[in-house]
Amino acid sequence: MPVRTPDPDPGDNGDDPLGAGTPFNGALGGSPTFGPPPGGPAANPGWLSDIELAEVRRRLPILYVEAIPVRTDGMGAVTEVGMLLRATPLGEITRTIVSGRVRYGETVRDALFRHLEDDLGPMAFPLLPPQPTPFTVAEYFPIPGVSAFNDDRQHAVSLAFVVPVTGTCEPRQDALEVTWLSPQEAASDAIAAEMEGGRGSLVRMALASVGALR
Amino acid sequence: MPVRTPDPDPGDNGDDPLGAGTPFNGALGGSPTFGPPPGGPAANPGWLSDIELAEVRRRLPILYVEAIPVRTDGMGAVTEVGMLLRATPLGEITRTIVSGRVRYGETVRDALFRHLEDDLGPMAFPLLPPQPTPFTVAEYFPIPGVSAFNDDRQHAVSLAFVVPVTGTCEPRQDALEVTWLSPQEAASDAIAAEMEGGRGSLVRMALASVGALR
Amino acid sequence: MPVRTPDPDPGDNGDDPLGAGTPFNGALGGSPTFGPPPGGPAANPGWLSDIELAEVRRRLPILYVEAIPVRTDGMGAVTEVGMLLRATPLGEITRTIVSGRVRYGETVRDALFRHLEDDLGPMAFPLLPPQPTPFTVAEYFPIPGVSAFNDDRQHAVSLAFVVPVTGTCEPRQDALEVTWLSPQEAASDAIAAEMEGGRGSLVRMALASVGALR
Amino acid sequence: MPVRTPDPDPGDNGDDPLGAGTPFNGALGGSPTFGPPPGGPAANPGWLSDIELAEVRRRLPILYVEAIPVRTDGMGAVTEVGMLLRATPLGEITRTIVSGRVRYGETVRDALFRHLEDDLGPMAFPLLPPQPTPFTVAEYFPIPGVSAFNDDRQHAVSLAFVVPVTGTCEPRQDALEVTWLSPQEAASDAIAAEMEGGRGSLVRMALASVGALR
Repeated sequence: MPVRTPDPDPGDNGDDPLGAGTPFNGALGGSPTFGPPPGGPAANPGWLSDIELAEVRRRLPILYVEAIPVRTDGMGAVTEVGMLLRATPLGEITRTIVSGRVRYGETVRDALFRHLEDDLGPMAFPLLPPQPTPFTVAEYFPIPGVSAFNDDRQHAVSLAFVVPVTGTCEPRQDALEVTWLSPQEAASDAIAAEMEGGRGSLVRMALASVGALR
Repeated sequence: MPVRTPDPDPGDNGDDPLGAGTPFNGALGGSPTFGPPPGGPAANPGWLSDIELAEVRRRLPILYVEAIPVRTDGMGAVTEVGMLLRATPLGEITRTIVSGRVRYGETVRDALFRHLEDDLGPMAFPLLPPQPTPFTVAEYFPIPGVSAFNDDRQHAVSLAFVVPVTGTCEPRQDALEVTWLSPQEAASDAIAAEMEGGRGSLVRMALASVGALR
Repeated sequence: MPVRTPDPDPGDNGDDPLGAGTPFNGALGGSPTFGPPPGGPAANPGWLSDIELAEVRRRLPILYVEAIPVRTDGMGAVTEVGMLLRATPLGEITRTIVSGRVRYGETVRDALFRHLEDDLGPMAFPLLPPQPTPFTVAEYFPIPGVSAFNDDRQHAVSLAFVVPVTGTCEPRQDALEVTWLSPQEAASDAIAAEMEGGRGSLVRMALASVGALR
Repeated sequence: MPVRTPDPDPGDNGDDPLGAGTPFNGALGGSPTFGPPPGGPAANPGWLSDIELAEVRRRLPILYVEAIPVRTDGMGAVTEVGMLLRATPLGEITRTIVSGRVRYGETVRDALFRHLEDDLGPMAFPLLPPQPTPFTVAEYFPIPGVSAFNDDRQHAVSLAFVVPVTGTCEPRQDALEVTWLSPQEAASDAIAAEMEGGRGSLVRMALASVGALR
């Protein structure tokens, strides 16, 4: 399967009004000396046009966050794993997880929350972990084989988290649906084959981190 | 300060009806071949009398769980740390955390939940983490100086967790009160001096694990 | 496959002179008030006879350490996983990992080192991790199905570590051989089927923790 | 104390021949389709001039790695913490740790090794951990107070590791000396006051992660 843009980040660029009109909602947003200038998004150094983003993607590793949404029982044990169905630009249906870029001035925690809300909707009620440490650091290289993960757009380094969600997921953006799988299904070869960029491995590592991989 | 019984485990022994009449509520409780025999608690091998517990405490390391209760903001960041005030048998007031033994046949997760409920009450609504890994393993030895932790009753090995609680804490058992401190206060030397067995260090390690230690 | 004694602990009991004559080499060994009494091992409360060990195994969860030995490249990445071949009392050959009980008065670190030396020989030169936290906590119950792990002898709770070894492994005790497998082989279903008590899952979790599970 | 450039990254820019002449030694370096073009470093998209680096630092979070070098005893327990003495451009002496940027095409592990070698010399023989997960993720913002860490040059996100070193440290680049402190000294307020950007907190979190914080 050819690897195409595995994790579009619609919150940053393109037709997303968040990306265009609201430059960044990060930790620095409220600062009088550091926030976006009144001249509009074009003058805000933290906002990148499509062309600029394409340019820096060839120069620097890009920081990402990823989240594997899970359902837990009353004792905290993982019972189900959430996966997004997404149509690629070519019309192919693939499975993916919550994923997106950390913006300039934004905390990792804020970025994680923003992408969870973008991908799962405002009623998902994710429970972000108190710890800042990811269960793994996934390194995506444009050339396959360098690591377990690849992304032909860029060199991305992703902090990956398991995030329990307690509400109702209504995918927004370009995700079609959220499906809930048992840990056994989520770790299967069949599911891994439907995920791009090596994210099937990431899901297995997530399950291992919560003791739910057999 | 002389070290006295730092973490009484009232759910296990003494006058606690849970310990006496309901031998163990653990993972094996429902098994027809493994549960408590009909002859009553005395015939259940998983229940230990005070004398027996005192005896095994001189022969084996005893497995404990400990929990540092925290309040988090909407983004999962820790804002407050819960501490129990407890009166020692000598009438001295000390601070402690949630702590107790894992019983035979009981999962670590079940033990953690049971002790949280014993110490914080039924309306605390703790959010147990999906991960089975503690933020640290605290080793308590009867002789001070072997490790950072000591307990003159026993050699105990404790799996320590940070647990967000979302409800109302009404301490039961012998705890007098739950007080909520800022991370800075909780990590202070003054608070550490009021905790027994080295648990001031444990609180600092807990705060470090959630990025809240300065 | 019937589950039989998956991890004999020859250093503790039976015909092992360490267990019989040298009561415990733990952190408390040197204490004048706490060490073994001059009356010999029989009088040392930290040493358990076979009968006593069998008895406490029905009353308390027993604390274990387990180690997955690995070879790493010069950059610390795992390249190979070590597995022990062991003959069961019935003559069947099984694969296992380093595993054993923590004794009274012994630190987790000391127990880990002792069992690595027992199982891999004195020239293995294991590099124990600076962190006290295991990659997972494996809970073995006597009844299958309670958790991913089972051990029909006892309720054991195991702190499991990945340990790089830099020297030559010459298994002692009852292990026949150490074989080195690639991460892919070690995670395969074929290998998992040759391991008892669910340790195939443990090996996969170990590989996930070092980013080597695909 | 005014916050000045806390972690100069001489391997990337300025007069460092590695940065100028050897565009990147990363995972992609050997690729015929992805490596530096024959036109020289200026044509290599992965190399950034001082001006370009200053520019992207105002647009994107920059990925860093940091390492707290430690000495361990034969059992893996941390006995000493290494700190770098460094003269600031203003001639002030400060303490710091190993720190630097991850380059485009470079793995986190390679970046960690490169900066350890840059700062501790080629004979330090660091033992990189098998795990890809940092003990914490430190977020440096240009404005103080957003998080525990700040860096007035940039928004940097740092993956921080504890790294045992087994050889001899001879600091290169602009570090003057490596000094070894006990865990207690390293965690003291006096030492924290000599570190810039909040790295005193980072050292304490590192010590907590290895169970060496009291």
